[in-house]
Amino acid sequence: MNLDQLDTPAAIIDIAAMQRNIDAMQTRMNALGVKFRPHVKTTKCLDVVRAQIAAGAQGITVSTLKEAEEFFAAGITNILYAVGMVPAKLPRAMALKKRGCALTIIADNAAAASAIVEFCKAANETFDVWLEIDTDGHRSGIAPDDDALIAIGRILQEGGIGVGGVMTHAGSSYELNDPEALAALAEQERAGCVRAAERLRAAGIACKSVSIGSTPTAFAARHLEGVDEVRAGVYVLFDLVMANVGVCATSDIALSVLASVIGHQPEKGWVIIDAGWMAMSRDRGTSKQAHDYGYGLACALDGTPLAGCTLIGANQEHGILAIENADDIARRFPIGMKLRILPNHACATGAQYPEYHALASDGSTVVWPRFHGW
Amino acid sequence: MNLDQLDTPAAIIDIAAMQRNIDAMQTRMNALGVKFRPHVKTTKCLDVVRAQIAAGAQGITVSTLKEAEEFFAAGITNILYAVGMVPAKLPRAMALKKRGCALTIIADNAAAASAIVEFCKAANETFDVWLEIDTDGHRSGIAPDDDALIAIGRILQEGGIGVGGVMTHAGSSYELNDPEALAALAEQERAGCVRAAERLRAAGIACKSVSIGSTPTAFAARHLEGVDEVRAGVYVLFDLVMANVGVCATSDIALSVLASVIGHQPEKGWVIIDAGWMAMSRDRGTSKQAHDYGYGLACALDGTPLAGCTLIGANQEHGILAIENADDIARRFPIGMKLRILPNHACATGAQYPEYHALASDGSTVVWPRFHGW
Repeated sequence: MNLDQLDTPAAIIDIAAMQRNIDAMQTRMNALGVKFRPHVKTTKCLDVVRAQIAAGAQGITVSTLKEAEEFFAAGITNILYAVGMVPAKLPRAMALKKRGCALTIIADNAAAASAIVEFCKAANETFDVWLEIDTDGHRSGIAPDDDALIAIGRILQEGGIGVGGVMTHAGSSYELNDPEALAALAEQERAGCVRAAERLRAAGIACKSVSIGSTPTAFAARHLEGVDEVRAGVYVLFDLVMANVGVCATSDIALSVLASVIGHQPEKGWVIIDAGWMAMSRDRGTSKQAHDYGYGLACALDGTPLAGCTLIGANQEHGILAIENADDIARRFPIGMKLRILPNHACATGAQYPEYHALASDGSTVVWPRFHGW
Repeated sequence: MNLDQLDTPAAIIDIAAMQRNIDAMQTRMNALGVKFRPHVKTTKCLDVVRAQIAAGAQGITVSTLKEAEEFFAAGITNILYAVGMVPAKLPRAMALKKRGCALTIIADNAAAASAIVEFCKAANETFDVWLEIDTDGHRSGIAPDDDALIAIGRILQEGGIGVGGVMTHAGSSYELNDPEALAALAEQERAGCVRAAERLRAAGIACKSVSIGSTPTAFAARHLEGVDEVRAGVYVLFDLVMANVGVCATSDIALSVLASVIGHQPEKGWVIIDAGWMAMSRDRGTSKQAHDYGYGLACALDGTPLAGCTLIGANQEHGILAIENADDIARRFPIGMKLRILPNHACATGAQYPEYHALASDGSTVVWPRFHGW
C-alpha cells in the first residue's frame, strides 16, 4: 500500500531518512573510536533495531524489562537496562540472564546495591552491575566526586558482584540549542563519567566500561577519551525538539503522522484533521524552545512543510490546524486530503501506535510492528 | 495478586470507585429522563463497558473504527462513531454495518454528506447519519443557526439517506470550574442542539435523535428537554482535570498509576520513581487550572494523597517527585516503596497501557485488557 491507501492516522517511517540517520551516527562513533549502543526505547521496533545493528551498533540500551525480553527473544543478547534497579524487578532480570541474556543492570544507591548482593547470594548467581553517574543534575545518578560512589562500589565489590562499569546520560542537553554550550555539556558528560571510573579504580574497584550519551551530546562531543561506548535513542528518527536543539534539520525527521482532513471552520481559519493527541501524543516539547511547533509541523504528502499552518490544538482524535490565510480553505484542504505531521517528540508519538508503516523510496509501505507496555 | 505483588508501573482501576461513578451518572441520567450512551474512548476496555451497560447504558460512543470493531465483536451493536466521516473510511464502516452493527456515523460538511450519498448509491446500501452541531465553538460541527445545516440535511435527504439525528459535544466545559458557568454551558449545549433539530424538522427534514454531552455538562444540566441521550466518557474513572472542573473529588478518581521508588537526590528533595511520561502520559491538563498537579497527585498505597509531594518532572521512564520537607528522604521513601499516582487525564494515561489491573475491595487484582491503535 502507498500513503494514499493507508487508513489514518498512521505512523510513517521514511526508511531512507532513517538509514541516513543511522549511518551518520555510526560513522561519527566510528570516527570517535567508541562502540555505539542505541537506546531502543525510541522505536521498540525490531525492524529499526536490526538496521541499527547492521550498521555497526554493539548491543542495545533499554528502558524497560519488557524491551529486554522482547529483543532478547529476537536474538539480541547484549542489553543494558538503563533504569535504576529495584529489588522487586531482580527475579525478572535474573530470569533473562539465566536464559543467556548478557543483561547489565544499574544502581545509584546503597539500598539497591545491597539488595542486588543479597539476591545474588540467595540465588548463587551474579549480575553485571554498572553505577549510574549524574553528570548534569537533571535526574538520577551519583555525582562523580560524591563519597557515595566509592561506598556503593564497595558494597558490590565486597558482595562478590563487582562494578562492571559506569554510565551517565546528560539529558539536560535537550534544553540547549547553542553549539558551544552543547560541546561544553558533552565534555562535562564525558569528563564526569571518566572521573567516576578513575575514582573507583583508584579505590581498588575495577570498573571496565565507561558509557555515556544523549543524542545532542553524541553529535557535539569533540573527543571521547576514556569512553568505551556511547548511547543515543532519538537520533534514529529525529523530531522537532531535536531540530530546535540544532542537531538535525526538519528534513532529517524520519517519523511523521499521516492524517486526513475531516472538517473545516472557515471563519476561524481552522482545518480539522483526524490526528489529535492520541495520534501525536500530548508532548509539547517545543513549547519552550526557539520555535514552538504546537502539536507538530504539517507537511504535504511528499513531506514538504506547509507554510502558515500550525497544529494549535489536539483533542483525543481531533487536531485543529490553524491556517494563516483562510481564503478558500475548504477547497485548498478538501475533506479526505492527506497530510503528514512531523512530531515534537518521536519517542512519545511512536508510543501511541501498535505499528509503523515503513515507507520505501518507491512509495510502497510495509508494516513494522512495535510493542508497548512494561 | 495484590498491589504489593504487581510489577511497576501499572494502571490500577479501583472497581468500587468506578462502580460508584457509573451508578451516579446513570442515576442522574435516569432522573433527567434521557438515555445514556457512554464514550468508551476513555477506557477501550470491555470489562468497564460491560459494567456501564449493566448499569443501564444504551449503546456506546466510539472515537475510532477500531473501537467500533472491537466492541461489536464483543456483542455490542448500538454504536455511534463520533468523529466526522471521511470518504476513505466508508468501506470499513459499511463492513461493520453489513455484519449487523447498528453503526451511526456523523458529518458536518457538504463534501462528506455527498460522499456518503454517493457511496451508498454505489453500494445499494444506507447509513444512519447524524449531523454534528457546534454549540460552543471549541472544535467541529455546524452552528445551530448556520444555513449550511439545512443545506447538508437536504443533501442527505435527497440522496435517500436522511438525517437520523443531531449530536454535539460542549468540550469547552473542561475549561470551566464555576457551577453557574457550567450550568449555563450545559443549557447552551442542550438548547443549541435542540434548536438544530427543530430547524431541520421545520425544513421538512426528519431528525429523530438529539444527542449531547460531556462529563462536566452532564453533571451541570438542570433539565434536558428535547434531548434523547447524553454521552460522556471520563466520568467513569474521573481524573485531576475533572477534580479542578469541580465535578468530582480526588477520592472519586478510580484510575491510578502504581509506581516504585527507584532513587533519591536528597540535596534537591527529589524522589525518583519509575513512572515517567510513558506511565503517566504527557498530559499536563491541570497546568492552566486552579490547582496544577504537575504530572499527577502522589498517594500512599491505600490511596491517601501525600501532602507536600509534587511530580514535577517526567522523562520516559523516570518521574521526579519533589518533596517539600526533604529530611530523611531516603528513609521515608525507601527504594522499592510503592506509591499510587492519580492522573491528570484518565483517557491519556490509560492509553499508555495494554491492560488495567482492576483492584477489588479485598485487595486482589485481576487483569482487564484494553486495546489501542486505529
